[in-house]
Amino acid sequence: MQLQGEARFSRRAVKVDEAIRLVLEAAAPGRQEIVPLWEAGGRYLAEPLVATADWPPFARSGLDGFAVRSADTALASPSEPVTLRVVATARAGELASAAVEPGTAVRIMTGGAVPPGADAVVMLEQTADALVDGRPAVRVKRTAEPGQNIAPRGEEFRRGSALAEPGTKLRPGHVALLGTFGCADVPVFARPRVAVLATGTELLPVEAPLVPGRIRDSNSAMVAALVQQSGGVPLLLGRVPDEPEAAARAIAAALEQSDIIITTGGVSVGDYDVMASLLGGLSAATSALSAASTTASSTAPSANAVPTPAAALPPNSRLLFNKAAMRPGSPTSAAIVGGKLLLALSGNPGACFVGFELFARPALRRLQGVAAAEAMLKLATAKLAAGFAKGSPHERFVRARLHTEGGVLYADPLAFAKSSMMASIPDADCLIRLKPGSQGAEAGAIVEIILLQ
Amino acid sequence: MQLQGEARFSRRAVKVDEAIRLVLEAAAPGRQEIVPLWEAGGRYLAEPLVATADWPPFARSGLDGFAVRSADTALASPSEPVTLRVVATARAGELASAAVEPGTAVRIMTGGAVPPGADAVVMLEQTADALVDGRPAVRVKRTAEPGQNIAPRGEEFRRGSALAEPGTKLRPGHVALLGTFGCADVPVFARPRVAVLATGTELLPVEAPLVPGRIRDSNSAMVAALVQQSGGVPLLLGRVPDEPEAAARAIAAALEQSDIIITTGGVSVGDYDVMASLLGGLSAATSALSAASTTASSTAPSANAVPTPAAALPPNSRLLFNKAAMRPGSPTSAAIVGGKLLLALSGNPGACFVGFELFARPALRRLQGVAAAEAMLKLATAKLAAGFAKGSPHERFVRARLHTEGGVLYADPLAFAKSSMMASIPDADCLIRLKPGSQGAEAGAIVEIILLQ
Repeated sequence: MQLQGEARFSRRAVKVDEAIRLVLEAAAPGRQEIVPLWEAGGRYLAEPLVATADWPPFARSGLDGFAVRSADTALASPSEPVTLRVVATARAGELASAAVEPGTAVRIMTGGAVPPGADAVVMLEQTADALVDGRPAVRVKRTAEPGQNIAPRGEEFRRGSALAEPGTKLRPGHVALLGTFGCADVPVFARPRVAVLATGTELLPVEAPLVPGRIRDSNSAMVAALVQQSGGVPLLLGRVPDEPEAAARAIAAALEQSDIIITTGGVSVGDYDVMASLLGGLSAATSALSAASTTASSTAPSANAVPTPAAALPPNSRLLFNKAAMRPGSPTSAAIVGGKLLLALSGNPGACFVGFELFARPALRRLQGVAAAEAMLKLATAKLAAGFAKGSPHERFVRARLHTEGGVLYADPLAFAKSSMMASIPDADCLIRLKPGSQGAEAGAIVEIILLQ
Repeated sequence: MQLQGEARFSRRAVKVDEAIRLVLEAAAPGRQEIVPLWEAGGRYLAEPLVATADWPPFARSGLDGFAVRSADTALASPSEPVTLRVVATARAGELASAAVEPGTAVRIMTGGAVPPGADAVVMLEQTADALVDGRPAVRVKRTAEPGQNIAPRGEEFRRGSALAEPGTKLRPGHVALLGTFGCADVPVFARPRVAVLATGTELLPVEAPLVPGRIRDSNSAMVAALVQQSGGVPLLLGRVPDEPEAAARAIAAALEQSDIIITTGGVSVGDYDVMASLLGGLSAATSALSAASTTASSTAPSANAVPTPAAALPPNSRLLFNKAAMRPGSPTSAAIVGGKLLLALSGNPGACFVGFELFARPALRRLQGVAAAEAMLKLATAKLAAGFAKGSPHERFVRARLHTEGGVLYADPLAFAKSSMMASIPDADCLIRLKPGSQGAEAGAIVEIILLQ
């Protein structure tokens, strides 16, 4: 018998790694801007960070004490301390007024420049005040080793060395380096502007009272939070009903003001799945996707969803994929629309969340200058704390919670992990990536995981 | 012999856990405010998040297909499909116009409300179109189980159940829940205003050219980035020289505009260590600290650093500790000044970073409503990837990098980890917490770690 809507279901599933690669290919690093150093944390560097000086810039004392010539202390002991005349003081920020000649010492503070002649610093606690001929002196009761308590010039960095590449996400330690090397204005990639559009006639605004059969649009706010976490600026474009014309108009408006578009809902095989209809009207231009594109463009949507001319997407649009070999979220789709990347995520909250982590987060990294290879999924391995019985013909991404025990990293699959479910999303700090197969995985198995933020 | 400045060094070291406890005791949850849901990600909830309805709010179809009475399909098979008359359509967002009577079915979309009478949904792909007496019908070729592909009302949440407590850091999944339950305006704790003040005559502004003996203030920018990561708003108050009057004035100004003050530098035993001088003038009022306070208030600072009346800190000030049993950063100090928490971190970048993670990050969590027990260090365990030879009389916190291999979490101590060093800060994603002892730890040992952001 002829199965209903067969052409619509015969979308060809692209493997997840390949789908991510297609998305990253379509996401080129974007605009750059200059931000003050105080706001650079968390941003992505646009130019190499280079040491503009040796660091430390001069031989620095590591602690408070006395700069000495180590040879002078060779015979020092608690019972027979060596007495040295104190000829100057080197405060941090000031140079000592005198060099250290044999038989003398200079009082020095943490971070002070070690004066000429000295090759060691003796800790203040290991000295005692003294007077010699009425002039200040110090008693040293232990032998000092050459170089002791001194950070030599250039110990950490040599002038000209590259400390971070473009695309590096600036952590507080990078900000310290930028400050050290005099970079008050930091070139970074601009935050990508991310249009967020929810599709679905059933969606109510968050502030609306519930109505039978309808639900509130929670995906837009969730995606906005995910976008912010990823360094982007969410532009919330609201909800559109399941009407191709309305969706096409909203996407045209989104293209005007954003660098990337994320939609939720309408990607499945239902008669009213508006994103599936719109994207089904695109042809895929890349040879890599010719098989998939043939299928996609041979789609015969039902009467409600035929893209009319008014509902067409702009030129310079092509499909990347309209099915990914994954659970949940297999109808997740991606396209280039009007020259910009559009990710069409599932409307099921769980699948929407997984789709964002798999495709949108890498894309947002790439738009902020991260090299394509670095922008891929951040994978690690963990031990399954509990078995996961359910097999899948495709890779499965299971929300889970991590903990450690004796140095072993355990991933514990969360309950309420169906694609429609929200309950487990807040608690998940990783996704377990299960290989396709008729069975799940047993407790104790080593599995691949994707670390979440 | 009488060691120099002995009274200044005899500060009593407080154990790190106790020091954190003292800091958390002094950091009460702060102001609250309302933010729009779209900006709530990453903020800390100020009121419980409660389900305002059962979720799902009605029995929902998990996929596109037909709502049926399972009993009607008991005899269905691929060779002998059951034919049911299609009496209505239930789009998502709309209620079906008819109930499912025996022998009938309702076309239903993902998320649609299951109509009365139906107790199962058959996947569209497992059906075929048909006509019965010229009217639309559907052929079902497999037996449907009761409940199949239906999410019953209240499956995930029951109306009135508490989903998140005050002090919860809102992750994208929480934002989805808030949206689902109609919370468009979210009560959160205000971002703490954190005054950041660098002390040290040697410090140049970041934009200044280097001068012999001086360095740029990199700590202010690093602390600003750490504060932002922790949800706070940094107020950069610049640099003050090593003069108690100047520092006291800057702290007075900081108190006017901030919820918490973080200073860097000037905490050690040098003659010019301005924060040590200022805090040395405080007495500790708590009985728990009476021993430490006696020591602290018996401090005899050198002539340069005697707090003059002009340099005194405001009333309502007391010392919490002026030495912590840790490496690096043992002179790290904390006080309540003018009723507000002041953390005096080391000026050495590595020690400053560790001090922030140990004391400021928990304090900022607490100021944002996290329960004191939850605000403590986030500990885990890992296996040492390489030995760390150096012992310490106090706990040692070693910057390290994590990776996994076969489900084991390895922590690899980074080079350039001296307290004065910056090189290893950007790369560190954890701190290894080594117990005090004459030796370090061997490769393969299981160690406690603090996960960094």
